[in-house]
Parts: sequence; C-alpha cells; structure tokens
Amino acid sequence: MENTNTITITVSQMENEFTRILLKHGFHETKARVLASVFTGNSVDGILSHGVNRFARFITYVQNDLIHSDAEPVLVHSAGAVEQWNGQLGPGPLNAIKCTERAMELARNSGIGCVALSNTNHWMRGGTYGWQAAKEGFVFIGWTNTISLMPAWGATDTKLGNNPLVIAVPYGDEAIVLDMAMSQYSYGKMETKALEHSALGFAGGYNLSGELTTDPTEILSSKRPLPVGYWKGAGLALLLDILSAILSGGLSTHKLSEKPDETGVSQVYIVIDTHRLNNFPSIQSTISGIIDDYKRSVPVDQQTTIRYPGERILEIRASAIRDGVQVNRRVWEEIVNLG
Amino acid sequence: MENTNTITITVSQMENEFTRILLKHGFHETKARVLASVFTGNSVDGILSHGVNRFARFITYVQNDLIHSDAEPVLVHSAGAVEQWNGQLGPGPLNAIKCTERAMELARNSGIGCVALSNTNHWMRGGTYGWQAAKEGFVFIGWTNTISLMPAWGATDTKLGNNPLVIAVPYGDEAIVLDMAMSQYSYGKMETKALEHSALGFAGGYNLSGELTTDPTEILSSKRPLPVGYWKGAGLALLLDILSAILSGGLSTHKLSEKPDETGVSQVYIVIDTHRLNNFPSIQSTISGIIDDYKRSVPVDQQTTIRYPGERILEIRASAIRDGVQVNRRVWEEIVNLG
Repeated sequence: MENTNTITITVSQMENEFTRILLKHGFHETKARVLASVFTGNSVDGILSHGVNRFARFITYVQNDLIHSDAEPVLVHSAGAVEQWNGQLGPGPLNAIKCTERAMELARNSGIGCVALSNTNHWMRGGTYGWQAAKEGFVFIGWTNTISLMPAWGATDTKLGNNPLVIAVPYGDEAIVLDMAMSQYSYGKMETKALEHSALGFAGGYNLSGELTTDPTEILSSKRPLPVGYWKGAGLALLLDILSAILSGGLSTHKLSEKPDETGVSQVYIVIDTHRLNNFPSIQSTISGIIDDYKRSVPVDQQTTIRYPGERILEIRASAIRDGVQVNRRVWEEIVNLG
Repeated sequence: MENTNTITITVSQMENEFTRILLKHGFHETKARVLASVFTGNSVDGILSHGVNRFARFITYVQNDLIHSDAEPVLVHSAGAVEQWNGQLGPGPLNAIKCTERAMELARNSGIGCVALSNTNHWMRGGTYGWQAAKEGFVFIGWTNTISLMPAWGATDTKLGNNPLVIAVPYGDEAIVLDMAMSQYSYGKMETKALEHSALGFAGGYNLSGELTTDPTEILSSKRPLPVGYWKGAGLALLLDILSAILSGGLSTHKLSEKPDETGVSQVYIVIDTHRLNNFPSIQSTISGIIDDYKRSVPVDQQTTIRYPGERILEIRASAIRDGVQVNRRVWEEIVNLG
C-alpha cells in the first residue's frame, strides 16, 4: 500500500465509526460496542485482515442474513466440565467471547473447562480470545474449523480448512499468544503480496506445474497453498477439524464447504485455571525463565530480534494507540458509506 | 539397511526377549510385561526408533539410575478435573500409561480430564497413549517437552525442544492418531538418511552457511533442523514447552537441557470422554463422513494414496504380526547380550 492510498484513523475514531455502523445495521447497543471493540482491537494489534479490512464483509454477511445480529449461543448439553453450545449463527466474535467466558467459569469450578460451539460464524482473530483468557490468568487452547482451503498432502484439490489454532498463557499483565493457521501463508497474505508483485519469503504452495513456488500469484491460481510442515500441518488440520465437529456436534470442513458462504463453523475452547495449580505462585517466574533463555538465542544476524508469539503485537499496539492505524483509503470509505 | 544386515523377529519372540531382559534388570514382572509390550508394539507399528532400536538405550538409562525401575507416579495436587502428578523418574511408558488412564477416569467423571506430569522420562512413542485412549472412546490431546534440539526462529543455537504433540480420536475399532514432533525431520530420520547417503524429500534445516538444505549430513553438522512451518512450528514448540512446565510444575526444555542426559521431562494429557457428548451416537458417522471425503481427494499422481494420520500404521502392524519385524542385526545382538 502506498502512503497516498492510506489514511490514519485514531483508535477512538475507528471504534466510534464501527459502533455507528453496527447500530445502523440493527445491533443492540451493548453488542455493537463489544463488536466495535473487537474489530478495533484486531486493527490496533496490526491484524487488519481480521479487523478494519474485514468489517465491511461482516456487515454484508449481516445484511445477507448469514450472521444473525440478535442471536445468542444456547447450551445444548452439559457433561460436567464439558459443554456443547449452539451459536445460532450469531456474530462470531460475540459467540467466541461468551464461550471463552463460559470455559473460564467451568475451569474455575473444575480446574479445566471445555466449551464446544457449533453453528457459529468466523471469530475473526482467534488470538482475541487467547488474550481474553490469558489476561485473567487462564491457559487457553482453542481452534476453529473453516471451509476447505488446502489440499490433503499428496492431493491437488482443496479438502482441508486452515483451521487456526490458538494457544495462550498469562505473562505478567499481558500474554504469550500463538495464533497459527495450518497454511504456511494465509490467502490474505498471498493476495497482498501478489498485489505488491513481491515473492513470499519461503515456498508457500505449488504452481500449476506441481512445483513448489514463492510466487503468490501462482499459488492463488493453483489453489494449492502449502500446509505448515507439509504432511504434518495437513494432518493437524484434519484432526482439528474432526475434533471441532465431533466435540461440538456441528459441521465439519467437508459439510461447511457444501454451502456457498462460510457460515456455521465449529469451534473448541479449552481453558485451564492456573490459580488452582499447586505451583501457581511460581508460574510467572517459570515462564520468565523460559522466555529469558529463549531471548538469549544467538540471532542469525544482528538485525534479527528473537521474539516470542504475541510479542510484536505489544509494540504494534502501543504505536497504534499513540499514532493511529494506517488504513487503506478505499477500505475506510467503504465502511463510512455503510452507514 | 541391507537385507543381510537385518534379521526377522516375530512379535512373540521380541516381546519375550524384551521381558527377559527387563526381568534381568530388576523390573517386577507386571512392569516388565507392560514395558515389553510397549516396545514391541512400537516396533510392530513400524516406529523402530522408539521401539526395538531404543530398547538398549532404555536399559542403559536404567543401569545409570536415570530411570528408576520401581518408581511410580504420585499425585501432587488435585484441582477438580486437573491433576498434577510427579513421575518420580520412573519408566516413561509406564508413567504415561498410568496418566492416560487417570485422565480417562477424570474424564468419565467430568467429561474432560487433564493430568500434568512432572519428573518423568521419555515416553518413547507418544502415539501409544493416543491409541490407548482413543480405542476406549476418548479424545486424546497430549504432549511432552524434550531437551533443546532446534533453534528459535531466526537463531542459530538450539533453544527449543521438538516437543511431540499427539492428537487421537476413536475411529471404528481403531483410531486416527496424529503424532508429530515440531521439527520437520527427527534426528533419527536424518541420521538414517545420512547413513544411506540420500537426501531428504524437502529442506529439513540449514547448512553451516545458513542456507536451507535437503542434505541430512549438513543439518546434523549445523544443528539447525527446521521447525515445521518455519516460525509457526518454532512458536508452537515454545508454547507446548511453557504449558508442559507450568501445568505440571516440572522442568522446561531450558532446565532439562542443563543436565547431561534427557531425564525428568514434563508432559500433559488432556482427555475427553466422547460417551458423554450429546451427539455420541453420531460421532462415528461424522468421522467417517470426513475421512471418506478426505480420501476422495484427487491425488497428485495415481501412485499416491491419500492417507489419514495413523492409517499406514494399521497396514504395517498387520504385516509385522504376520511376517515379523525386520530388525537391524547389530541392534538385536546388542539387546540379546543385555541379558
């Protein structure tokens, strides 16, 4: 993106604008405010693809009745510390926040809690819920399935979702948050790189001749993005999908992909309450010991900073809060025109 | 391995020989039989690196008092459906079987159970415990940490374990079992390939000049194996280690690596009882639907069979039960001489 094509939006300006649009599109005030905060937070954290850049599409899904603005998740079945909920096609981020909270309640009671959620919508950035739980002192392990986006290992047609997996742990007042999709690069990343006519840092998929390539345009044509770790990430994507579907009783990637739009996905939220562990008083020093050692790594070159997952987000967040978020001008205009 | 260098060992012959050696080295009969069964099972399933090929080293660890043959895991702390156990440096596979059983008991009560185990030893093949739980109708998610084996992303010195992650689900009378270390190739695999003077199928690490290479000898020299999915697998390895250490109250990779031998590792066993789910009656048809669709993938070439994780093991197992296991002659002689 060139500078003339971007516009600086302050955090409060963004949040107010999102709230205004959501209210115009029939959301109740509380829900509008929470959703605005999630979309703003994702943008502030530098995940524009699941923040400001995705907001207009979210509204389109609401307009097309794919996302039901009023719907709330309902408990389908309780089995001790495991609960199965139906998201009733409500807004993905609201369902996700609710299920994370509920998993935390279960974990307060039982040490660990698991909420499996069927029939929900895209949660945007999964890391949001990792931060939510970890900042309260909980371990978070959660994932979602998606429509099919990548082939099985050794195949050419897409059968697997990229099924992002989130693992978060409390770290001081913040968190260490891993948020990884099972494709080496997201479609969003490859599209951005293709527009810039630049290559991926590593092979990100196959071209139409079946050769590994760093050219995003070739991968977008072949629809053969590479799973992380080749056969390993493909296997992990398959297992995460199976778990999503059987634990929630909801749709698998296979069934989701029969529909014209991605809606009704299945998710799992596993949360552990660290306050209830025997070693709770020493957990933070254990984590600091690991991270301090990790950061003493010998970098490949002096320019390389060895970062833990989520560390860079803190820097991006601080800068966005101070200076605002650089938003593509057309993206912002489209949003403003939604209201 | 050339044929003249291998010897065919039947399943009962192998199990009897392992039992004989274990009894000679002071194991009580029941424990000797269970351990013999695990090492044989891993070999029968084709995972020789954590079966027959590792047996002599296991005995050496016992002789050197790194593995305490009599030790049993003890409960340190109970927090509802989460329990923290101390493995007391007992034999890794026995501790792992016990903790998997205990997690299943917790899950029968609470839907989900989590056992975090400190101070244990190498569990050999993690998949063993995935099969154990899944064949009883439980979902299994477990992992172990290890000594440091790979660099952080962007670094040259080893700071991360390869921390294998196991996810298993019941599938008919068998199971779908993913058992993946966070390095693209194991050291064992790279050593085998180096001896054969053959290249890895994909880049498996960096050479001493900092370039990606498929030459296993170069990677063994640089000690820079590649994490699965580059930065992603490195991040996942870090988080799995943090979780192992904080949930169990045991040692992290960092602390483990200060010792001359790998002993006292930390593990996590999370188990969910599918019998208690609302959709239990339809779970097997859901999984079959996913696997059937997955296997309808269009293969890259006619020779490629699209397999789910663990599928090939069933074929290898059947063939080993029928025809015996091909074992390196020197490996077998070393074992025989242990008694």
